[in-house]
Amino acid sequence: MEKVVQRIGLKHGSGGRAMRQLIEEVFLELASPVDGIGLAALDDGAALRIGDRWLVITTDSHVVQPIFFPGGDIGRLSVSGTVNDLAMMGATEPLGLTCAVILEEGFPRADLERVRDSLRDTAREAGAPFVTGDTKVMGKGELDGIVLNTTGVALTDRIVTDAGLAPGDLILVTGHVGDHGLAVMSRRHDLGLQGDLRSDVAPLNGLIRAALAAGGDDVVAMKDPTRGGLAGALHEMAAKARVGIVLEEPKVPIRDEVRAAGEMLGIDPLVVANEGKAVLGVRAAAAERVLAALRAHPLGAHAALCARAVADRPGQVVLDTGLGRRLLAEPEGELLPRIC
Amino acid sequence: MEKVVQRIGLKHGSGGRAMRQLIEEVFLELASPVDGIGLAALDDGAALRIGDRWLVITTDSHVVQPIFFPGGDIGRLSVSGTVNDLAMMGATEPLGLTCAVILEEGFPRADLERVRDSLRDTAREAGAPFVTGDTKVMGKGELDGIVLNTTGVALTDRIVTDAGLAPGDLILVTGHVGDHGLAVMSRRHDLGLQGDLRSDVAPLNGLIRAALAAGGDDVVAMKDPTRGGLAGALHEMAAKARVGIVLEEPKVPIRDEVRAAGEMLGIDPLVVANEGKAVLGVRAAAAERVLAALRAHPLGAHAALCARAVADRPGQVVLDTGLGRRLLAEPEGELLPRIC
Repeated sequence: MEKVVQRIGLKHGSGGRAMRQLIEEVFLELASPVDGIGLAALDDGAALRIGDRWLVITTDSHVVQPIFFPGGDIGRLSVSGTVNDLAMMGATEPLGLTCAVILEEGFPRADLERVRDSLRDTAREAGAPFVTGDTKVMGKGELDGIVLNTTGVALTDRIVTDAGLAPGDLILVTGHVGDHGLAVMSRRHDLGLQGDLRSDVAPLNGLIRAALAAGGDDVVAMKDPTRGGLAGALHEMAAKARVGIVLEEPKVPIRDEVRAAGEMLGIDPLVVANEGKAVLGVRAAAAERVLAALRAHPLGAHAALCARAVADRPGQVVLDTGLGRRLLAEPEGELLPRIC
Repeated sequence: MEKVVQRIGLKHGSGGRAMRQLIEEVFLELASPVDGIGLAALDDGAALRIGDRWLVITTDSHVVQPIFFPGGDIGRLSVSGTVNDLAMMGATEPLGLTCAVILEEGFPRADLERVRDSLRDTAREAGAPFVTGDTKVMGKGELDGIVLNTTGVALTDRIVTDAGLAPGDLILVTGHVGDHGLAVMSRRHDLGLQGDLRSDVAPLNGLIRAALAAGGDDVVAMKDPTRGGLAGALHEMAAKARVGIVLEEPKVPIRDEVRAAGEMLGIDPLVVANEGKAVLGVRAAAAERVLAALRAHPLGAHAALCARAVADRPGQVVLDTGLGRRLLAEPEGELLPRIC
């Protein structure tokens, strides 16, 4: 009998079920017990106890293609992705960022400087200092251009996980969903309508600071809907907290041009990556207060209350279209390679 | 006039002068003032003040080819590289490691599991827990196999930099030099003698702990001679401390098989990467004590006192062959792509 060689597929990097399974089957074995939140939690990052505070650590590699896209580039994406993962754990004051760059031989120096400028400007916007880095070069044809890894560390007094929902909690999204994924895919497919579509990529730590100041301990769960989109984030939050989530489709903010591009490309805006949005679970009594704080911030002007946690159907997400209800499947993750 | 497009070359990733210049010209602009040792120091990592302690952070991407080589693999390399960079700053008790993996579509799952096992085993050997990670996939032909980024954090009471040498200090190397670089290059070129050559890749934090316990504040500078080799490390230490360094060639421990492979391949063992060695600058009075502590550890059995810092020729390295003296040039860095 021929031996079947199992191979990695694009779906294993797309933020859906296939990726989660790969991580659970292969990488969870790297986890070891820590005083805090470690690898086994599969949260946006880790949180380690230092005295009476928490050290939050998060890492992301960025492989987006094209590296320059409407609304941003790989540099802005890299800083924002890491700053946002820290913020999603409740750590809104980054202590330091690392920048590890891998370049293909022949990569234009001018493009590298443009990426560097973007890294610098976005880090300043977030108040996050770069503190160390690494540079590697691979041969022509061994790497498509450039990839970046950014790791961030921050201290915080209180951790917010992605697992804190309880039945009755309300769920907010901080603005329009689908912008990043559809801007990158439209650019890649050279759709004529790309002029209207821009990535939302932005560091959210200031916005999250405002939300936490307004909501305090009533902000019980946070997650940024990157790969896998809003649907993926809600699935993870439902599964980890063992609650059901009812998503009210008409209340989800989606731009007309994103909806149009999604229809042309056959991509559901609910399952594509956002890079400047957050999903917040809040106790019902605090929801209007947190919503008002979000809307008062430039990056949260279109924030909306669009879902709620329920005791029914733990681990599942129900889409309420306004006309009826159906289960929203966990994204499998095959469509969108190199979106971030 | 035609515009000349400057492009990145392999030499920009090889740990010599070309890489240093690229980093200084392009990436130093990312540096911002921090309370401690930041990007501008271009040390093995950063050190940020937290209360009366230091948080050390270091990052490295690993692109070695082949990914499995005599004596190690990309997983062991990745953990060791990061643990060693922490140790070189004086931080020998890692708090946490991150693991960000980028895979090529079609990468065999069995190889991934083999790399994962090596990551796990080496992390255990170093007492360094993995706390968070990231997984990305690039398309077939967009990446050659797999690259790994590992970032590490640790707390320490005292920082040791690579800039602390003063005239009169003695310089120790913890064992044979050139093993890693020549093992990988011999494997890549399929030299017949590869059986004798093994990479030295290993986590050194236990060894460095022993050296610091013996030497205390008299250990004034540390650096691991990775890309650029012993020659590159000494050049950096000389330049940063504004001292000269006299390297006594006959005292540098080099295995016969490494010397032989170096001659066949035209590679000087002094300029190739080591992945399980450290260079320590110590006050003269403590040198024998530190040397004895190193030799008492399994990873330091061949440690040797092979150089000294002098007031003459600040920033330069003089090679004393036993027959005469000549300047040892800073490695330019073109020969050895993807060595780590």
